[in-house]
Amino acid sequence: MSTYTAINLVARPEPGPITAELFEVVQKPMPSVGDGQILVKQTHMSLDPAMVGWMSPDTESYIPPVGLGDVMRSSGLGEVVESNHPDFAVGERVMGMMGWTEYFLTTGEGLRKVQPGLDAEMVLSVFALPGLTATQGLYGSGHPKAGETLVVSGAAGSVGSIVGQLAKADGLTVVGVAGSDEKCNWLVNELGFDGAINYKTDDIAAKLGELAPKGIDVYFENTGGPIQQHVFDHMNAHGRVAVCGMIADYTAETPSAGPNWIPIIKKRITIQGFTMPDHYDDVPNLIAKLTPYVMQGKIKHRAHVLDGLESSIEGLNMLLTGANNGKLIVKL
Amino acid sequence: MSTYTAINLVARPEPGPITAELFEVVQKPMPSVGDGQILVKQTHMSLDPAMVGWMSPDTESYIPPVGLGDVMRSSGLGEVVESNHPDFAVGERVMGMMGWTEYFLTTGEGLRKVQPGLDAEMVLSVFALPGLTATQGLYGSGHPKAGETLVVSGAAGSVGSIVGQLAKADGLTVVGVAGSDEKCNWLVNELGFDGAINYKTDDIAAKLGELAPKGIDVYFENTGGPIQQHVFDHMNAHGRVAVCGMIADYTAETPSAGPNWIPIIKKRITIQGFTMPDHYDDVPNLIAKLTPYVMQGKIKHRAHVLDGLESSIEGLNMLLTGANNGKLIVKL
Repeated sequence: MSTYTAINLVARPEPGPITAELFEVVQKPMPSVGDGQILVKQTHMSLDPAMVGWMSPDTESYIPPVGLGDVMRSSGLGEVVESNHPDFAVGERVMGMMGWTEYFLTTGEGLRKVQPGLDAEMVLSVFALPGLTATQGLYGSGHPKAGETLVVSGAAGSVGSIVGQLAKADGLTVVGVAGSDEKCNWLVNELGFDGAINYKTDDIAAKLGELAPKGIDVYFENTGGPIQQHVFDHMNAHGRVAVCGMIADYTAETPSAGPNWIPIIKKRITIQGFTMPDHYDDVPNLIAKLTPYVMQGKIKHRAHVLDGLESSIEGLNMLLTGANNGKLIVKL
Repeated sequence: MSTYTAINLVARPEPGPITAELFEVVQKPMPSVGDGQILVKQTHMSLDPAMVGWMSPDTESYIPPVGLGDVMRSSGLGEVVESNHPDFAVGERVMGMMGWTEYFLTTGEGLRKVQPGLDAEMVLSVFALPGLTATQGLYGSGHPKAGETLVVSGAAGSVGSIVGQLAKADGLTVVGVAGSDEKCNWLVNELGFDGAINYKTDDIAAKLGELAPKGIDVYFENTGGPIQQHVFDHMNAHGRVAVCGMIADYTAETPSAGPNWIPIIKKRITIQGFTMPDHYDDVPNLIAKLTPYVMQGKIKHRAHVLDGLESSIEGLNMLLTGANNGKLIVKL
């Protein structure tokens, strides 16, 4: 009997690195494809910071946690290898929440078809969660205007790099915050950011003053940490903050304190948290908004590709430490 | 030559209580009233928390600080005692930013006439800065809906008490946070709040759980301090926070840290700071919104009246410590 590999979550993470003990690698028998079903062979999986949050129970979270013993949740891209469904043909490419598994049996609900000719890395780096998240947060919460200044943290990450490029294309001054000189150089030299700050080695306050001399109008938050206070200090009146991610705090023993709220009043700042599940109905509009930028070559991406299903576990830690250079993708 | 009394600001405050040394009480000669001018005898001055902020230079503030040597800024109510202006008759009552002074010479610009028959305490407690601020913040940033739960800090203060009563009239469950049992009793027994928390003696987290069992949808922030973290912990998805005041931090040696931002994402919270100077053009609309509630007897107020111009200095400290019971007014 032929089998395939999947990885189940079997324990909840403690503060600190993600360990292999939290997961169980299992062999499953190849399923038979029933009426109205399709079998997808997953070719590429996306690793995203939000996945770390999905591993822990939290009654207040926006989606339920992954159940213990269930396949770890993730989005990915695959090819239909068997179909008993009139809407899907063998050979078509689809993407959706398939999880850490080589094969995925489904009725097709929630899957999106992927246009032929689009490179898999481009699909997962731009037209998947990162690009949709960047577009929703920037326009839905950031309200950027030409001539303004935007600062984005996690700027070399999959979301941050798209946020910065969209804002740059819209005529804003764009400053990225990242965790290595290599990433900072990439932001400025390859993506065309106006400036970049290495939060590990630069004097953040001084650099913000230098790179955002007219003050900050939009802050797109992907990381958390001490940047928040410095951004508040440099924010202009009526500034907007889109809160997308807090990767620095997701697995921290003690989440860091936030900045004092006095600047929120003095500068009449609006801070808005958002998550994509609230906006799934808007996905067609978000793709329509994003596509022209991509077609005009204004959105570059780089993928950091890991090999094989089991590399996913170490991949999550790379997201936590920022060791990845580009969108983390696991090739199966 | 007859004179009148005014109080000038002559030094900037240090952290801690406001001291008499920051001010100079001066005698000024009665002015002659030129063409197009009126002389107003101020009868009642309003003391508001924002005034503490106006005493310190802060290039990022929403209005310039009071200049050293200038009359201390405040709003008040008075009566026209001389007029060379076609739009103002002797005996009419007016309100506006007249400052700490017994008499005010002006062209009338920026003054509003006050309807005869309205009690002076009611005017300054409801139809002045407190009521306008409450109305703007609650509806402009809080977006309350019947059936929801609102928590307001500084609930027994001039703004907070109106916020809570408006929300109660709109069909929300309303919980107030205040600093004494006397204030808490007043909120529940006189104003009809559903519950009140004494932040100095109650277990805030436990009380919030008990009094807001369905979670918090709107938080109206007047004080700052540790309440923020507890509110975040109890907030519902898509909660709104209107940030109006941070009285606990205005004169603090070190402003307190704010809460971590993870709940902002998980609960998709929107936080919005606001100040009235951004909304002065809306004052007629705000008064139109507020008036029916007042006319239907739904907005009670209580004034804490001090006597004489020089009591203003101690009055500012009462605002900082919460020693006042009701809207602070200085009767001249």
